[in-house]
Amino acid sequence: MKLVCSQTELSSSLQLVSRAVASRPTHPVLANVLLTADAATGRLSLTGFDLNLGIQTSLAAAVESSGAITLPSRLFSEIVSRLSSDSPITLSCGEADELVQLTSLSGSYQMRGMPAEDFPDLPLMQSGTPIRIDAEALVKGLRATLFASSGDEAKQVLTGVHLRLDDDGLECAATDGHRLAVLRLANITEPQAVASAELVAGEPFAVTVPARSLRELERLLSGRPSSEPLSLFCERGQVVVLWADQVLTSRILDSTYPNYRQLIPESFNRRIVLDRRGFVSALERVAVLADQHNNVIKISSDPAGGKVMIRADAQDVGSGSESLAAEISGEEIEIAFNVRYLLDGVKAMASDQVVLQCNAPTTPAVLAPVGEENPFTYLVMPIQIRS
Amino acid sequence: MKLVCSQTELSSSLQLVSRAVASRPTHPVLANVLLTADAATGRLSLTGFDLNLGIQTSLAAAVESSGAITLPSRLFSEIVSRLSSDSPITLSCGEADELVQLTSLSGSYQMRGMPAEDFPDLPLMQSGTPIRIDAEALVKGLRATLFASSGDEAKQVLTGVHLRLDDDGLECAATDGHRLAVLRLANITEPQAVASAELVAGEPFAVTVPARSLRELERLLSGRPSSEPLSLFCERGQVVVLWADQVLTSRILDSTYPNYRQLIPESFNRRIVLDRRGFVSALERVAVLADQHNNVIKISSDPAGGKVMIRADAQDVGSGSESLAAEISGEEIEIAFNVRYLLDGVKAMASDQVVLQCNAPTTPAVLAPVGEENPFTYLVMPIQIRS
Repeated sequence: MKLVCSQTELSSSLQLVSRAVASRPTHPVLANVLLTADAATGRLSLTGFDLNLGIQTSLAAAVESSGAITLPSRLFSEIVSRLSSDSPITLSCGEADELVQLTSLSGSYQMRGMPAEDFPDLPLMQSGTPIRIDAEALVKGLRATLFASSGDEAKQVLTGVHLRLDDDGLECAATDGHRLAVLRLANITEPQAVASAELVAGEPFAVTVPARSLRELERLLSGRPSSEPLSLFCERGQVVVLWADQVLTSRILDSTYPNYRQLIPESFNRRIVLDRRGFVSALERVAVLADQHNNVIKISSDPAGGKVMIRADAQDVGSGSESLAAEISGEEIEIAFNVRYLLDGVKAMASDQVVLQCNAPTTPAVLAPVGEENPFTYLVMPIQIRS
Repeated sequence: MKLVCSQTELSSSLQLVSRAVASRPTHPVLANVLLTADAATGRLSLTGFDLNLGIQTSLAAAVESSGAITLPSRLFSEIVSRLSSDSPITLSCGEADELVQLTSLSGSYQMRGMPAEDFPDLPLMQSGTPIRIDAEALVKGLRATLFASSGDEAKQVLTGVHLRLDDDGLECAATDGHRLAVLRLANITEPQAVASAELVAGEPFAVTVPARSLRELERLLSGRPSSEPLSLFCERGQVVVLWADQVLTSRILDSTYPNYRQLIPESFNRRIVLDRRGFVSALERVAVLADQHNNVIKISSDPAGGKVMIRADAQDVGSGSESLAAEISGEEIEIAFNVRYLLDGVKAMASDQVVLQCNAPTTPAVLAPVGEENPFTYLVMPIQIRS
């Protein structure tokens, strides 16, 4: 293998694929990135794969002789990122040799690699018609829901985000059992959005992908602007996303995703409209005290006075209360929440106003932005308060 | 106690004094800040003190009734920092009551404090004539030396920076036993710099202060511009620094500081002048490999070729070498260093060029900036290499 490439491109590509390299690899080769140089296409391909998540990208290179090798991801990235961008980088290694020679303007480095044959194959099946999704829409959907997925591996399917495509558009949903975030992107239309055989047959397409993989997908998609839709293949427990020069593969969470729609109440008898920024600030202040105890805050509405009170009580430490102007319909109510759950949801919205809808102190409440194009529903279970 | 003050000022003052609040207090009251409101002066004073380091500052306040109380530093700072800067803050608590009431625009908070009597007294002795030092000069001296002090508490006096004032100016020195940094600020003249009874008598003044305290002093002094000199009192194992509205107290390390001057060779038979930025970049790249093994890099000079080679060898992982143009006088040499020590020193310099001076691979080498106004000496012990 011998090739010359740009320092800038190699460095940014390494940064990208290293996100999929295991931090605590179960096998030494999983701490490496795979380099494949192809003289025919004039490209160097890089792959990181921790057996769950895989990321592959490629860059232009003057390939003198083709070949493949793996190199320690961290060491290689750190050296390359510190090299001068003024000088191209030459990489070479002999056949059946695992010592890679890197030459730049003033420096020369040798790194011991491992054979490419030891590196596991990415599940790169791309059979059938791909599902095409607008990348920007998917980024919106992921940002609005990822935070609501569970971080507890024991919760299995809840550690993912559920993506559902039908004739009407894309829906992203995540829940950890205490709160549920659903964003519906209805304005995604053909051909950018959906063009799959399955959908033509009227059958919606749905898949649950681990949040960890989708966080990397979100990062990858927002890393550079492109109006190109991404292509998604789904088969045998794996999902493969192709976008620009990049490939992301991930295992799928294949248990049935909970039927979250049935959790969302159909109607509400109480509605409280609040200034979103003022609500966030008040919650953040009261949270200082709530965090000292059990994260619980109480919201009480005063329909006559046109305001709500937000209160936290941290026994022995202190207490705090904030008053906020509100448009209230329905009778007064006192309802308690985990302040962190409220903040996560309200911060994920971008509107000027939010509406809090509920029926009783013990039934699910729903927060939503006011006047947003894409319907966002954030359901939070209240905390039962002993009076 | 009852007073009204500005959110901005209270918040920044709290941030300042909280640096001296113990993170793991040995007594509950040490997690608190002391508030003292004085109706006569119209000021609210804040104090943080962990028994080693103390910081006190004050701000203007409309004090309705004087009083003193202590409040949990973190809780209090976090609430105040999140309050709106549009509204003043009212603080009040009854006599013999430890519940402090905080009121702002929309919110009201209660915090449980502890009596001011429980808070230890700051060692605020200010007897004798103070030593006056130019604040900007001291900041320079601290920045050039703090990093070379030892982080190992067992090394006692080496965990501090040694400050020495004589008729010629201020000298700051720090060493951890492996390297030594000395900055001499010769251009400090009366009356800004030195005006003490002791110095008039021709006796130099010297003190060793823990690096932790001096880091906070450096932060405090560089926090806002002021041409005002600071006043320094030193007595009974304590140093007290007064500057603007601020007071910093610290214990002194009272063992004898090593006679570091005798460590610095008087002459060198080898001199290597390097571009500082190029040297830093080359060291940082080679450090990626040196860090994998034992941090050792080797520098070899090539007087005929007018260049130096910097090499690191990490067995089993790889190796790297960089070549750098240099003006060399004296014979060729190969000398090894801990790359981290070199980087610390060269990064603390600001000059375009640095000079590395040495005599043999086993005797101390000295790095210095070329053409700087204040003489800076950075001595590093080489590492003995088996050939």
